[in-house]
Amino acid sequence: MLIKIKKSARADDIRIIRELLDRNNLGHRVIGEALIGVESNPTEELSRELIALDAVESATPIATPYKLASLAAHPEKTVIRIGNIEIGGQNIILMAGPCAIESQEQLEAVAEGLKGTGVSVLRASAYKPRTSPYSFQGMGEEGLKLHAKAKEKHTLLIETEVMDVRDVALVASHVDIVRIGARNMQNFDLLKEVGKCGKPVILKRGMSSTIEEWLMSAEYIIAHGNPNVILCERGIRTFENATRSTLDLSSIPVLKSLTHLPVIVDPSHAAGRKDLIPALSAAAIAAGADGLLVEVHANPKKAKCDGKQALLPHEWAALVAQLKKVAHAMGRSI
Amino acid sequence: MLIKIKKSARADDIRIIRELLDRNNLGHRVIGEALIGVESNPTEELSRELIALDAVESATPIATPYKLASLAAHPEKTVIRIGNIEIGGQNIILMAGPCAIESQEQLEAVAEGLKGTGVSVLRASAYKPRTSPYSFQGMGEEGLKLHAKAKEKHTLLIETEVMDVRDVALVASHVDIVRIGARNMQNFDLLKEVGKCGKPVILKRGMSSTIEEWLMSAEYIIAHGNPNVILCERGIRTFENATRSTLDLSSIPVLKSLTHLPVIVDPSHAAGRKDLIPALSAAAIAAGADGLLVEVHANPKKAKCDGKQALLPHEWAALVAQLKKVAHAMGRSI
Amino acid sequence: MLIKIKKSARADDIRIIRELLDRNNLGHRVIGEALIGVESNPTEELSRELIALDAVESATPIATPYKLASLAAHPEKTVIRIGNIEIGGQNIILMAGPCAIESQEQLEAVAEGLKGTGVSVLRASAYKPRTSPYSFQGMGEEGLKLHAKAKEKHTLLIETEVMDVRDVALVASHVDIVRIGARNMQNFDLLKEVGKCGKPVILKRGMSSTIEEWLMSAEYIIAHGNPNVILCERGIRTFENATRSTLDLSSIPVLKSLTHLPVIVDPSHAAGRKDLIPALSAAAIAAGADGLLVEVHANPKKAKCDGKQALLPHEWAALVAQLKKVAHAMGRSI
Amino acid sequence: MLIKIKKSARADDIRIIRELLDRNNLGHRVIGEALIGVESNPTEELSRELIALDAVESATPIATPYKLASLAAHPEKTVIRIGNIEIGGQNIILMAGPCAIESQEQLEAVAEGLKGTGVSVLRASAYKPRTSPYSFQGMGEEGLKLHAKAKEKHTLLIETEVMDVRDVALVASHVDIVRIGARNMQNFDLLKEVGKCGKPVILKRGMSSTIEEWLMSAEYIIAHGNPNVILCERGIRTFENATRSTLDLSSIPVLKSLTHLPVIVDPSHAAGRKDLIPALSAAAIAAGADGLLVEVHANPKKAKCDGKQALLPHEWAALVAQLKKVAHAMGRSI
Repeated sequence: MLIKIKKSARADDIRIIRELLDRNNLGHRVIGEALIGVESNPTEELSRELIALDAVESATPIATPYKLASLAAHPEKTVIRIGNIEIGGQNIILMAGPCAIESQEQLEAVAEGLKGTGVSVLRASAYKPRTSPYSFQGMGEEGLKLHAKAKEKHTLLIETEVMDVRDVALVASHVDIVRIGARNMQNFDLLKEVGKCGKPVILKRGMSSTIEEWLMSAEYIIAHGNPNVILCERGIRTFENATRSTLDLSSIPVLKSLTHLPVIVDPSHAAGRKDLIPALSAAAIAAGADGLLVEVHANPKKAKCDGKQALLPHEWAALVAQLKKVAHAMGRSI
Repeated sequence: MLIKIKKSARADDIRIIRELLDRNNLGHRVIGEALIGVESNPTEELSRELIALDAVESATPIATPYKLASLAAHPEKTVIRIGNIEIGGQNIILMAGPCAIESQEQLEAVAEGLKGTGVSVLRASAYKPRTSPYSFQGMGEEGLKLHAKAKEKHTLLIETEVMDVRDVALVASHVDIVRIGARNMQNFDLLKEVGKCGKPVILKRGMSSTIEEWLMSAEYIIAHGNPNVILCERGIRTFENATRSTLDLSSIPVLKSLTHLPVIVDPSHAAGRKDLIPALSAAAIAAGADGLLVEVHANPKKAKCDGKQALLPHEWAALVAQLKKVAHAMGRSI
Repeated sequence: MLIKIKKSARADDIRIIRELLDRNNLGHRVIGEALIGVESNPTEELSRELIALDAVESATPIATPYKLASLAAHPEKTVIRIGNIEIGGQNIILMAGPCAIESQEQLEAVAEGLKGTGVSVLRASAYKPRTSPYSFQGMGEEGLKLHAKAKEKHTLLIETEVMDVRDVALVASHVDIVRIGARNMQNFDLLKEVGKCGKPVILKRGMSSTIEEWLMSAEYIIAHGNPNVILCERGIRTFENATRSTLDLSSIPVLKSLTHLPVIVDPSHAAGRKDLIPALSAAAIAAGADGLLVEVHANPKKAKCDGKQALLPHEWAALVAQLKKVAHAMGRSI
Repeated sequence: MLIKIKKSARADDIRIIRELLDRNNLGHRVIGEALIGVESNPTEELSRELIALDAVESATPIATPYKLASLAAHPEKTVIRIGNIEIGGQNIILMAGPCAIESQEQLEAVAEGLKGTGVSVLRASAYKPRTSPYSFQGMGEEGLKLHAKAKEKHTLLIETEVMDVRDVALVASHVDIVRIGARNMQNFDLLKEVGKCGKPVILKRGMSSTIEEWLMSAEYIIAHGNPNVILCERGIRTFENATRSTLDLSSIPVLKSLTHLPVIVDPSHAAGRKDLIPALSAAAIAAGADGLLVEVHANPKKAKCDGKQALLPHEWAALVAQLKKVAHAMGRSI
């Protein structure tokens, strides 16, 4: 249930509502100044009691455990405007770049290579979640600065991953979009923190996350103050080992039926091998994706991570030409 | 390894080769009159010994456990010609129809509804694998006859499932394409039998089958005499329960890199709900599928099985119009 | 629902019941002479109508899709008596032997090695489901004969796999217990056939089978006339690749809460490596298994299949000594 | 590779080694004062070059990606001593308590109920990872204080979950063992932080984590200074939905063959229903677990989370009596 509070309500009124929910063992959270999200729907009797309260403007029961992320509760599609782009609109947004920021030269070479390919967001990570404590862990703040420089020089928007709650403010001050990686999809403290960061958030699907759990993680971010969540399908873990993860493109139409949030696809991490990227990118667009997040590197053989899944700039350019046709066939543009 | 036998070879020569393989503990099988498939590659020494034999024309080591299905060993794409259609060619083949054959009226209504939508194969099952022994098990031979009548009347090709080795000859005598269902992908006796049936075979992927195991099952069919195998992706079993199975569209480009066999997609059984079919069908074509196998029913609410995933004929017609655009964008036609 | 028919009922009475069910679109099956299994529970109104029929003795609604296999419908545990053993009783039954029957010498060596270790059933397969068409496919009927000889000589019961409906009668005539392998758990025609074979059946869990689907396959066998079904947990397919399958020991207490059928465990196929067999065997007994099915081979390095997972006879003997202690701790015996 | 540095080495010597590794593109990390962990094994040539350096005492190649956690590199089992208990020794350690700390009364009731049952560690969480932002999120610091009080009063050790890097120091100052939950198994910043916290760490397996990835997360903690890691199996995510997760008891013997770290099992979160706890606990001990982590609540129906999986104190007491027998059968004690 979502309870809307009247503007005239005072702190005491809200306290009374909350105590009533507490007495009935209903988890809840005050969202901003005018809303209370309730874990599940109260009984009819309690619903009547709530609506009867002076401070309550409306009390809407919602069938799904996510409320703010629900399409039923919010039938208008969310379109996120950043600079001169719109994510979730008619246009399909291309985000591309290297896995990790390795040096100014490397970032520069990729940014140069992306020129004229319709990319509006330069992806790259300064903080890297690595399976091994001995692997390259990212350039950290120094990397963020290189990323910001590239933004200036190439008039691109930039996005990057944040892993540590203590880095959220710093990261958000440098980039246009912050990204939550698959391994942190249920790092709830991090979700709360990016909920307060003021920048749009790409929320990658966890490797063993159901679509419902994914939407619940989006709900965390929205309920903590940030409505600009972009869901990113990147594959789930299955028994199949021909690909690193199994890209679940069904999640796109499923999400479109459940939520108003934009959905993008990362074929690179799903596949783990670059030869599959063209087919998976085209399929993602045909399935209804609002954008793509693809790894491109000017020298993948020397990449400090994930070189096998990165396209060369000219391969990327050729792919975009093909993707434009598919987007057009689907009544959209790139 | 594939060992090619000289035309001049006699039974005794082949016996000598087989004994040599046996002594070296190498499983193998004589395929037709001129080929021996060997489980794995012999040592270099044994390879030299084999090639030195008079009866051996060539002995080709093959890196993958499937040999005849391998693209490396057979770089030319398989195009299967049935009637006036080609499966695996430039044109994308549409197969549609009800889950089960229920009556002449039902089949007639669907066949009528499919008119003018570019469908070349009428799918429908007379034998149904049902989880419950109490559920409708299919009309059996009577259903096959109705299917054959519909073929005549509507000049459509027809395909149907075969489940029991004892039914293979009967089924093959009625239809143009026989289908092996997901649950029977590793029913090896059935694979051997359809290997001898003389009709093209649609081989659905097992619910927990890796791509390699799937190709090994195709290898069974080819090694038993039938090169006309069509692989059908229909989703794998994962933890996600928003869909009945998780459609693994990555399997299409993976297969294209490993095998010369055509690949089609069944979005209906993967999704288990009809609202996802348009997105998944478009995605399948964008990913490179050579055809689609879709459930269409004129009265899904009364369907004896799987009604929830069947499109109405007019929904199907609208979908085909969209799919033509995607096919065109991919340089193909429908 | 299970409908019990009065002994006095005539064919016409049964026809009337079936037509009533048909008109209400309820799948069903006549089981033996006195029972009709119905796919799902009729409405209250229809239930009343059914009970009011002269020929109906009782009509019991059952919550689960399996009826005859349900503990709720049949609260007494099934104990299967074969020769002088009981499967499902207080005693834990040990079944051991090689994966495949390879020769008389091989079978003899294993049978000798098992002497005095408390094994009551000699397992071994004459028909082998192999991923590759080029691998050893089993000795077939000749193997069955060797198996029967070993039975005579060593006064052991014997069990073996059947894969092809055409072999069921032959196999059942040679062995005490027939086994359905994991790949055939939903080979419904085979289930129907072993339902009529007159010998107890070990039904292995399919690699991607839920517990409910497994019980539905047991239901097939029982509904076709054979109440003596032994469920065999052998691991499910997951993303973990340290083991061949993931042994799901939770299935034992889950099954004990749902069905009256005995449950045994095959740790060998689950693990795929022999070093894990002792721990998994002990755990299976502690979890409540009624028996174990373990691979033992006198010369695993020369085994034609699955040598890596076979214990040597002296390893097996040492394990049994340990298992007796665990069984005793659980209030059972070996 | 693990490179051991001579005590006589100076900062400059270490810098030289690191630069050599960097030039060869080998990720690495200095561990404490005398060790460098290297991502993978250098070439033979580079290995010789490293060993030839004055400052290098030894350079041990290690086959697995985890080095410090590897049994091969550290053949002596780790036994963790806390207060008067040993984790990883002959005795099996029992940890029990409620899912969440809810109030002093609740914690008191459980602690009372556990008396005399052989429990040495009182488990309970002050910080709760909840799927919904509207659900009870734990009592936080106030909960930690109640936990510490219960420790005093009942002379029990205590353990609790930490989720946020900013809470690690606070949590570690209150409890004897900190716990990393399944969702945070690859929250690498959190792993680094608990690596520095000075208290033993229970590391739960991630829901989609392979055993190798799990050991890599343990490696993070050890490489950041904390050798006292206890691995906790709690089930993996699969398609089976009769249980919340699929408890993978094979992981116990697999881990015992790969690592020297102690392994415990949490049957409560795996099963998600209390009726399975007895069977799974017994099986865990039979499989070789060094301890159990079980949810016990004096009033599960009023529990703020996971009430369905919590045992009542008298059920727990009865279970322990049974577990003692199994432990004894396995040559261990409780």
